[in-house]
Amino acid sequence: MLKTIRIILFVNILFAGCLSLQAGTINAKDYIRGEDATPGIYEAIKQCKLSGARRLVFPPGKYEFRPDYATEKYIFISNNDGSLKRFAFDLSGMNDFEIDGQGSQFVFHGFISPFLMENTRNIKLRNFSIDYTRTFHSEGKIMEVYNDSIDVHFTSSYPYRVEHQVLTFTDDEKRLYPWMSLLEFDPVKRETAYKAVDYWCGPNAPVKELEPGVVRVYVPGIRATKGNVMVFGASHRLVPAFCVLSSENLEFSHIDMYHCGGMGIIAQMSKNISINHVNTTPAPGSGRVVSLTADATHFSNCSGYIRITDCLFENQKDDATNIHGLYARIDRILSPNEIIVQMVHPQQAGIDFILPQKSMEFVDAASLVTYAENEVASTEKINKEFTKVTFRRPLPAEIKLKDGIASADAYPEVLIKNCRIRGNRARGILLGSRAKTVIEDNYFHTPGAAILLEGDCRFWFEQAGVRNLIVRRNTFDNCYFGTWGNAVIQVASGMDEDKKPLSRYNRNILIENNRFKTFCPEILNVYAVDKLTFKNNTIEKTSDYPYPVNPAEPFVVAHSSNVNIEPLD
Amino acid sequence: MLKTIRIILFVNILFAGCLSLQAGTINAKDYIRGEDATPGIYEAIKQCKLSGARRLVFPPGKYEFRPDYATEKYIFISNNDGSLKRFAFDLSGMNDFEIDGQGSQFVFHGFISPFLMENTRNIKLRNFSIDYTRTFHSEGKIMEVYNDSIDVHFTSSYPYRVEHQVLTFTDDEKRLYPWMSLLEFDPVKRETAYKAVDYWCGPNAPVKELEPGVVRVYVPGIRATKGNVMVFGASHRLVPAFCVLSSENLEFSHIDMYHCGGMGIIAQMSKNISINHVNTTPAPGSGRVVSLTADATHFSNCSGYIRITDCLFENQKDDATNIHGLYARIDRILSPNEIIVQMVHPQQAGIDFILPQKSMEFVDAASLVTYAENEVASTEKINKEFTKVTFRRPLPAEIKLKDGIASADAYPEVLIKNCRIRGNRARGILLGSRAKTVIEDNYFHTPGAAILLEGDCRFWFEQAGVRNLIVRRNTFDNCYFGTWGNAVIQVASGMDEDKKPLSRYNRNILIENNRFKTFCPEILNVYAVDKLTFKNNTIEKTSDYPYPVNPAEPFVVAHSSNVNIEPLD
Repeated sequence: MLKTIRIILFVNILFAGCLSLQAGTINAKDYIRGEDATPGIYEAIKQCKLSGARRLVFPPGKYEFRPDYATEKYIFISNNDGSLKRFAFDLSGMNDFEIDGQGSQFVFHGFISPFLMENTRNIKLRNFSIDYTRTFHSEGKIMEVYNDSIDVHFTSSYPYRVEHQVLTFTDDEKRLYPWMSLLEFDPVKRETAYKAVDYWCGPNAPVKELEPGVVRVYVPGIRATKGNVMVFGASHRLVPAFCVLSSENLEFSHIDMYHCGGMGIIAQMSKNISINHVNTTPAPGSGRVVSLTADATHFSNCSGYIRITDCLFENQKDDATNIHGLYARIDRILSPNEIIVQMVHPQQAGIDFILPQKSMEFVDAASLVTYAENEVASTEKINKEFTKVTFRRPLPAEIKLKDGIASADAYPEVLIKNCRIRGNRARGILLGSRAKTVIEDNYFHTPGAAILLEGDCRFWFEQAGVRNLIVRRNTFDNCYFGTWGNAVIQVASGMDEDKKPLSRYNRNILIENNRFKTFCPEILNVYAVDKLTFKNNTIEKTSDYPYPVNPAEPFVVAHSSNVNIEPLD
Repeated sequence: MLKTIRIILFVNILFAGCLSLQAGTINAKDYIRGEDATPGIYEAIKQCKLSGARRLVFPPGKYEFRPDYATEKYIFISNNDGSLKRFAFDLSGMNDFEIDGQGSQFVFHGFISPFLMENTRNIKLRNFSIDYTRTFHSEGKIMEVYNDSIDVHFTSSYPYRVEHQVLTFTDDEKRLYPWMSLLEFDPVKRETAYKAVDYWCGPNAPVKELEPGVVRVYVPGIRATKGNVMVFGASHRLVPAFCVLSSENLEFSHIDMYHCGGMGIIAQMSKNISINHVNTTPAPGSGRVVSLTADATHFSNCSGYIRITDCLFENQKDDATNIHGLYARIDRILSPNEIIVQMVHPQQAGIDFILPQKSMEFVDAASLVTYAENEVASTEKINKEFTKVTFRRPLPAEIKLKDGIASADAYPEVLIKNCRIRGNRARGILLGSRAKTVIEDNYFHTPGAAILLEGDCRFWFEQAGVRNLIVRRNTFDNCYFGTWGNAVIQVASGMDEDKKPLSRYNRNILIENNRFKTFCPEILNVYAVDKLTFKNNTIEKTSDYPYPVNPAEPFVVAHSSNVNIEPLD
């Protein structure tokens, strides 16, 4: 009997093997019927799984994806908004698989995310672009500027209605695109307007429609320039482009991310991610000043390596990347080895990064000083916010409520090389991995800090603190022309002022052989750092932007040790 | 070795058995620490499961339930809004279990549903009340009435803020309570104002705060009476009191449902439900005119029996009950035995009532005529809206897109007896079960039809059509003083006018020995009925409300067969 089973199993394996070889590549076109590619791609992926095909290939062309027949899952994904999301490509659970768009355009309609990859291994995605028929944000040309109001003109790309003085964006299928904030862009320079600020005026800022397409928006204290573009920012991050959860060995290459309603590539608890020749940019010919509505890439609690090379990240409405862990806040101490922790930030709720056998650090919330480590024995999830955690060993004596715990297990080695980062909102790259991090040969033209070392256990709850950071051979071209930050390279880790002398949250930083072209003096602003060397960098003064009114010193260093800043030319 | 394991197993079973006998009853108080009962009840229920205790008992008192540590599940529940919900009592998977509140008050804070019962068997709930510290709707006294606006006064029970002429309800913990509509109540008669209508003005109807607590609300064409109460209706039904899914043998008794943010008892795909001495009424002393924000009870695709006896259903913001199945709309025909169906109504999405081995009827959407039956072989859920269904036998020749399929498998026997239904919004009871339905010895004082036979495959997608309905010995006391319906007993099944002659959607109706006290002539208005007998009823004319301006005939019968209306006194 047992023998028979073994033989059947063996034959099955052989047969699957043959199928896999025969049907190594599936042509997406063979499965698509009609205008909407979504159901066809669902069937094609199913067939890939059944046959063991290793590749799904698209003949070059334009493919439209509607949400109606898309796969649906409730997804909690870091720094985006958790929700019941629809996905065109759900590759969850797949291994050793490649999708080649061969230059195709993937165009999405409404609230559908292109890719979900949960528990996937060895996946390659390449050669396609991602865009949407209607953007999740809206852009209007500034026609007039008054005291506390502006007149904005919307083209037919941004359908809207005004009811009871309230502005609601919509599309030709009656979907709503809620908005929350305003930010001004310079359409000639293709970047945020000089020193522009976010107006978090909310969706109920009173408006008046002056004529079809022209709306007066009232915002106290608003400043703007006629001819610029006012961007009405999406209220939520519900529709990221690539959602990566608990996956390993992923390669993204030659992908153009023109738009999505959230982050471009967001990966959490994943390992070994390579992003090469991925461009974040507004769709050519779209006339848009904004590409994605949030960060181009973002990594939470990842490990192995993150390699971002030869990429363009421009005009997205947040940073080019942010690499960090998560802090869970200690909410209750139940016993000598049990606590309840809370995921405080709503966009981190539901992410179960605390797992049995993982090592956790205990962190003082005010100083970000790690005072203990312990191994997780078991967890019991109460809801998306609260989890009961039992540790193998007794809790540290210093433990107190509102401190944080975070992964002490593994951090990703980071390489960011040959990338261009420009014209987006806010900062360039936020670095928080404790493994070796190399930033080299990049070009930065960012309105905020080009490189930011952040992390806090109070507001964003992002675990950071570099331990081995090399920043070399980059060009910083007139960075910090906006309002996000205080220098081109900056520490902004959240800690109490009186705790900074105790903390050395960022360590071992080498900044060398970079070129700073700058209209403003603020190059470096750091605190709570141990060992920072700034050497062999060149600084070229420009007059490309107005000189700041009350500039800070070029190098501000506080509460730090072993800082070595070489004399400048 | 095997023997040892067997002995250990046996001893374990013995031990568990002893525990279960010893600990047959668990005292909730033993588990509650501090003000918030939620974590304690979670532990108590866990302990009940572990020990096999059959009863959880509350010493009489007031218990507060906060959402923070509550169990969380994504729930699709019929005719309420699907969402990630928190529950104080999650009894899912439990059998043979009773909760006795012994007269306790259960008071809930914010967005937390009291009870979830999914896949439960033999559960008894008794002797407690349910209320909320802040209601999901808001009530304001009408201070002045102008052309197109009213001034409303809110007590501190209904915190709000006005920003940019937009009214937002809140509470003392900064939660938001979105609103959507207005409905006027008469606080003296404790019912909807005479012929009051719903104003679906939306949450952005412009307002102006005149002084703290007094707000002017602008609604074109609004009519209201000074001194009455304007109810600002909750925009969604997110927080039902009792969510019952796929469960069997449930008894609710001696429960006061003072408030919740959705339906009171909502049961789907469940069997044998008994509701006895359950009162839906505004909390005593609260000064509220509204109890629950939606139907008091509601049943979708249930079977076995539904018995509602000795209950009071008053002042809820929708019907006292509605018993129906669901129609899924045929969206695509894929092969001779495969279709894709859509759950069209957003509040029915995600409910998987189409299951293998179940028998389905095929229904013409325009006439509601059933033209075939077939058995489900398998299903493949695409997302909450769409499901692929494979049938055992070929599809009927008559099948066409946009027709419906619904359960032809089992319908619940219904008994509604000795209940009082009054003062609520809309109708009394909506009856749609095809099994024997007896409505006897009840008192109705409803602003809409007291008894409504509805069902349609176009808008609400509720399968109905009685086959054996007895309405006897009820008192209909001045019903239809509002605007929902056209007679005291009414058919309003949704079908095309030209199809009504073909349809006999409701059948075998006996209305006898009832007492109609009525200010208006409209007693009965039916169509597409086969066999209706109206006999031995008494009608007493009153002048309790103004006589209608253009009354219909007392008995309107169209497109029906075998209708026998006995001469009246």
